[in-house]
Amino acid sequence: MGATKRIGILTSGGDCAGLNPVIRAVVHHANGNYGWDVLGICQATNGLMSRPPQAIHLDLNEVDRLLTLGGTMLGTTNKGDPFAFPMGDGTVLDRSNEIIEGYHSLGLDALIGIGGDGSLAILRRLAQQGGMNLVGIPKTIDNDVGLTERSIGFDTAVNIATEALDRLHFTAASHNRVLILEVMGRDAGHIALNAGIAGGADIILIPEIPYKLENVCAQIKKRQDRGKHFCLVMVSEAVCTEGGEQVTQMQQFGECRFGGIGQYIASQIAEYTGAETRVTVLGHLQRGGIPSPGDRLLASAFGVAAVDLIAQEKFDQMVTWQKRQVVSVPIAEAIQNYRNVDPQGTMVKTARGLGICLGD
Amino acid sequence: MGATKRIGILTSGGDCAGLNPVIRAVVHHANGNYGWDVLGICQATNGLMSRPPQAIHLDLNEVDRLLTLGGTMLGTTNKGDPFAFPMGDGTVLDRSNEIIEGYHSLGLDALIGIGGDGSLAILRRLAQQGGMNLVGIPKTIDNDVGLTERSIGFDTAVNIATEALDRLHFTAASHNRVLILEVMGRDAGHIALNAGIAGGADIILIPEIPYKLENVCAQIKKRQDRGKHFCLVMVSEAVCTEGGEQVTQMQQFGECRFGGIGQYIASQIAEYTGAETRVTVLGHLQRGGIPSPGDRLLASAFGVAAVDLIAQEKFDQMVTWQKRQVVSVPIAEAIQNYRNVDPQGTMVKTARGLGICLGD
Amino acid sequence: MGATKRIGILTSGGDCAGLNPVIRAVVHHANGNYGWDVLGICQATNGLMSRPPQAIHLDLNEVDRLLTLGGTMLGTTNKGDPFAFPMGDGTVLDRSNEIIEGYHSLGLDALIGIGGDGSLAILRRLAQQGGMNLVGIPKTIDNDVGLTERSIGFDTAVNIATEALDRLHFTAASHNRVLILEVMGRDAGHIALNAGIAGGADIILIPEIPYKLENVCAQIKKRQDRGKHFCLVMVSEAVCTEGGEQVTQMQQFGECRFGGIGQYIASQIAEYTGAETRVTVLGHLQRGGIPSPGDRLLASAFGVAAVDLIAQEKFDQMVTWQKRQVVSVPIAEAIQNYRNVDPQGTMVKTARGLGICLGD
Amino acid sequence: MGATKRIGILTSGGDCAGLNPVIRAVVHHANGNYGWDVLGICQATNGLMSRPPQAIHLDLNEVDRLLTLGGTMLGTTNKGDPFAFPMGDGTVLDRSNEIIEGYHSLGLDALIGIGGDGSLAILRRLAQQGGMNLVGIPKTIDNDVGLTERSIGFDTAVNIATEALDRLHFTAASHNRVLILEVMGRDAGHIALNAGIAGGADIILIPEIPYKLENVCAQIKKRQDRGKHFCLVMVSEAVCTEGGEQVTQMQQFGECRFGGIGQYIASQIAEYTGAETRVTVLGHLQRGGIPSPGDRLLASAFGVAAVDLIAQEKFDQMVTWQKRQVVSVPIAEAIQNYRNVDPQGTMVKTARGLGICLGD
Repeated sequence: MGATKRIGILTSGGDCAGLNPVIRAVVHHANGNYGWDVLGICQATNGLMSRPPQAIHLDLNEVDRLLTLGGTMLGTTNKGDPFAFPMGDGTVLDRSNEIIEGYHSLGLDALIGIGGDGSLAILRRLAQQGGMNLVGIPKTIDNDVGLTERSIGFDTAVNIATEALDRLHFTAASHNRVLILEVMGRDAGHIALNAGIAGGADIILIPEIPYKLENVCAQIKKRQDRGKHFCLVMVSEAVCTEGGEQVTQMQQFGECRFGGIGQYIASQIAEYTGAETRVTVLGHLQRGGIPSPGDRLLASAFGVAAVDLIAQEKFDQMVTWQKRQVVSVPIAEAIQNYRNVDPQGTMVKTARGLGICLGD
Repeated sequence: MGATKRIGILTSGGDCAGLNPVIRAVVHHANGNYGWDVLGICQATNGLMSRPPQAIHLDLNEVDRLLTLGGTMLGTTNKGDPFAFPMGDGTVLDRSNEIIEGYHSLGLDALIGIGGDGSLAILRRLAQQGGMNLVGIPKTIDNDVGLTERSIGFDTAVNIATEALDRLHFTAASHNRVLILEVMGRDAGHIALNAGIAGGADIILIPEIPYKLENVCAQIKKRQDRGKHFCLVMVSEAVCTEGGEQVTQMQQFGECRFGGIGQYIASQIAEYTGAETRVTVLGHLQRGGIPSPGDRLLASAFGVAAVDLIAQEKFDQMVTWQKRQVVSVPIAEAIQNYRNVDPQGTMVKTARGLGICLGD
Repeated sequence: MGATKRIGILTSGGDCAGLNPVIRAVVHHANGNYGWDVLGICQATNGLMSRPPQAIHLDLNEVDRLLTLGGTMLGTTNKGDPFAFPMGDGTVLDRSNEIIEGYHSLGLDALIGIGGDGSLAILRRLAQQGGMNLVGIPKTIDNDVGLTERSIGFDTAVNIATEALDRLHFTAASHNRVLILEVMGRDAGHIALNAGIAGGADIILIPEIPYKLENVCAQIKKRQDRGKHFCLVMVSEAVCTEGGEQVTQMQQFGECRFGGIGQYIASQIAEYTGAETRVTVLGHLQRGGIPSPGDRLLASAFGVAAVDLIAQEKFDQMVTWQKRQVVSVPIAEAIQNYRNVDPQGTMVKTARGLGICLGD
Repeated sequence: MGATKRIGILTSGGDCAGLNPVIRAVVHHANGNYGWDVLGICQATNGLMSRPPQAIHLDLNEVDRLLTLGGTMLGTTNKGDPFAFPMGDGTVLDRSNEIIEGYHSLGLDALIGIGGDGSLAILRRLAQQGGMNLVGIPKTIDNDVGLTERSIGFDTAVNIATEALDRLHFTAASHNRVLILEVMGRDAGHIALNAGIAGGADIILIPEIPYKLENVCAQIKKRQDRGKHFCLVMVSEAVCTEGGEQVTQMQQFGECRFGGIGQYIASQIAEYTGAETRVTVLGHLQRGGIPSPGDRLLASAFGVAAVDLIAQEKFDQMVTWQKRQVVSVPIAEAIQNYRNVDPQGTMVKTARGLGICLGD
């Protein structure tokens, strides 16, 4: 098994379902099988920045029920780039060295960082700068990390968004309304496209395919001609019009970021079709939730594989899911290959096959 | 079994889970057992107002899968008081006689009307005016119909709101945030109070108990002192401050009715505590959904009992649930006994016992 | 608030969903609000029988996540009547005094006992004999405790059994099969009747209504005549034939208690109708599970009310749910009023109204 | 779009979740987009064997709500190899030509066959013999069809089995019991392994890894040493001992096929460890259920792609899922590459990393 080690694990960026199962898997394999010390770093890199560093020893008893818990027992944050850390008084400071010192002061042999592409890029920069042995695990409900078919949290988010659409279907049909569901995903339309197909949306708008309002309204009309006087519209938070402008930039809903886009499109539809519209913004409901079995499996496989990478001293690598296998790739490659929806790919073809309007 | 009859059934007001199971139960008992004709009236009273009246024959095959479907196969509407019907050009018209004529032209011996207190009051007025034999079934996610312990749709709505709180808990705890969940209920806080208790809210604000912001903030502070840097706040859509003004009236979010109240409270909390807040508006998600087993049972019991009332020619009655039994009461009494949350009742005591802040 | 107290709490009998939420509510109110010591007794009365007694101090931090956990954190057992305790060598011993001594040696002012009618009867006998101040809380998936409309665990069990029937419906219809679902309930058919109605069973067999095989087969035939070549049969574990013999006593499946009854009826149906049959035994799946919102509410209300009874020194009482209120009754009265399904009651009428065959 | 066509679609073998969404996707693309006639063949190949052939025209209105329905609206059967069809009197008959004639008499240009490897092999033999243009879609909860990462029905089955384990966990922990869950999968352990990992099993027994009872008991003992007096055991229906004999062949439970294996292992464990054991057989619950979002997506993608294969006249092909894409392969290759669990693969490594005992 090789020499005993002390490793750290942290969760970074927005929370999602599956983080706790990763922590559990890492502790089982690293502590339970290899006998290493495992330190859980609190609040992402902020735990390493604190003096003394904030971390807790993790053994099997600590992770006992994590499989079914959403979120992360270690806490996380998506605020505070350590290279330009907001000091609260309006200024920013490069605090990267404090994090690096925190890592070394804890005597860590390696660090498992769980994050999306943004977090992993920052962690890698810290690791390069400070001689930290980093292994990355991709997590994001947006599923936009490159080279891996799936990231942790996506499956649960799609399940929740699908279930929401299932529910809205009843009200839409009962009241002859056009119901709009706005979901997350940042610049990638994966949640909207997948949940839209799975939940039976009639129209799906994603950032990768600029939409024309007239196409959206034509689909509503086409359904009316079939005797269906209701419609389900799935909207990704960063959709843009044909002109290429993001809707978010065009409108003026002030700081009420969520709620704006769906509302904007609802107003457009109401104005041009006369349909009665209602908007639901799924918001934070899609982040949390009991991890789906799919996310538990992925998280478990990633956690175990990340520990094995450390045992083999293969650092600067990220675990990925490819063809039912965990495969490791250089972190740098993964974050250079941002992946959004392929407009020629299988899921877009599937949506078109189902007669779903994508706005183009 | 007595002479053969022809009866109508309609669903009125906002949709909710359990309407389809009522329709199913009525058809099974009236058509399957008694051999009566059952006509499903489309789009609430609008179906009787149309010429010809819009209605469909319902037999066992038509209602086969209704048990697990949310919404209503008959359609519904919560627009259009027939005594002051909006004509689309800004004027209103008393169209009550058209509905009454529609009832008689269909040759109906009786009508089962499913609605909340508002719809039932209108239906009763129509029945009194036009000699319609009416039996009422209470449905509303707000659970505010008097004399019945439960109305159709409430159980499912509470389940969905509870599940939402379960999910938000993970994100709140992971990010040390104050998360606010805004739910429906109109002037009654039943959904907020029940789902708030069931979902582990730390603060529950309901219309029946005016809140002071300082109490809300004190609870957040008290939890921080216990080392809990997050908080779950359940807010009913019509909460009001101690002064008695409805928050909805104080704020200026224009026609974006939903979303405003939770956002208003979130801003208040952020301002006075410095906490990071996020708002989720459950919206139409709580209306729809697969009917819960509880709502299916209630709906089935109500549907069967309503048919029996017609068989016994006991009209102008509403079915209620009391002590595990279906009991009928005069519709007039039920709608006079609007029931919101009793500030001295069991659920409020329970909330206080659990250390939940109710704002007072 | 009165003098400080030390109270104990134990869970007895088979586990079910809602026990943990009761424990949480008791700790919140007794410890959090009243400031009392709360001791959780391990493994039902066995914890008091051990030397030293096995108990753990419970404060808010210990009960933090109990709301969503099935089972009981204190452990339980349904083996070992303390008045005739099996010593493992085939003999039994009256160990009641050891339990009473355990209670007093812990310095308890009162004990909250959570159990079904059997457990509550034993606890009451111990309390009477040994001067223990007992308050009872009814829990049982069977819902057969008298004077209370609902007991903890029933709602979740009905939900799970309903969901099972929902699932079996698809396979039954796809394969034209008669599918039998066997559920628990002991001598009461509440689970079978409620979940059978909610899940759309075509036939429901319960202990309170002896069945004739010919009636069961006639219902299958009647459906075939309607073009429905499949059937869903819900069977309670202790059903009996018209002659009054329990099916369990007639058959010879040895110690494989569960699985036998449904299988027996399936064989009968296959033999007399030629239908293809399959049996599913729900078994322990209906005990566990995340507590339903309904069970969380009931458990919370009961836990808070039980603590208030102690504060008022009203002992030998059990909390009950009656007309949306918690009401306390003498334990003795509750356990004398065993309640099974009323063959003239609302739910039986509802089943008949829906055209469900009850075997008679 | 090419000339108009008439195509048939049938579902064969055991039902599972996702069949209805395939039918829906095929109808949307073939009828809605291409304008072809689509005939749904009833009861698998039996519909083609009947005179006249049993089939129904399918258009958009017919498939409207199929997305959320388990099972198959067309019916299915896993009885009756057409080359040796059981005639009911004990004899068998080659009825393959009747099916082929049925296909041609309906004027079909192509047939989409949805089935597992057994069904697809039979369909292919029929197609080769009778000049039928066949396109295959893999479905099976066992996930053992070669060349495709996923088959329809597997995701839902894993979800249900995982949820069952989640539930049993509570009872196991509350009662200090060893709970055994027996699941399907035939000769492949995919359901048991995936759901066992996702649901937190302590022991997973699959056909691909012969188990030694002493290893199973050692794991139970090891957990007891950690203070965990309960254990969750996931057992696949066709597990075998180290000697290589299938447990199913060793035991004598007669025709009660399901229930036997788990019970056998429970008895072994009870005998050798003294632990209290209970068995749950998941049975048909894992076949049915509302299709998971994952199965709805896969089914939709497969259905659309199968129609495109017909448009391109690429027959004798099966659609597969590979690296987030639908790829077609010769049916013959797929059924020659039966795939069970790779004992050196990622999921087995993951299980070992989590400290799960696999019996070896």
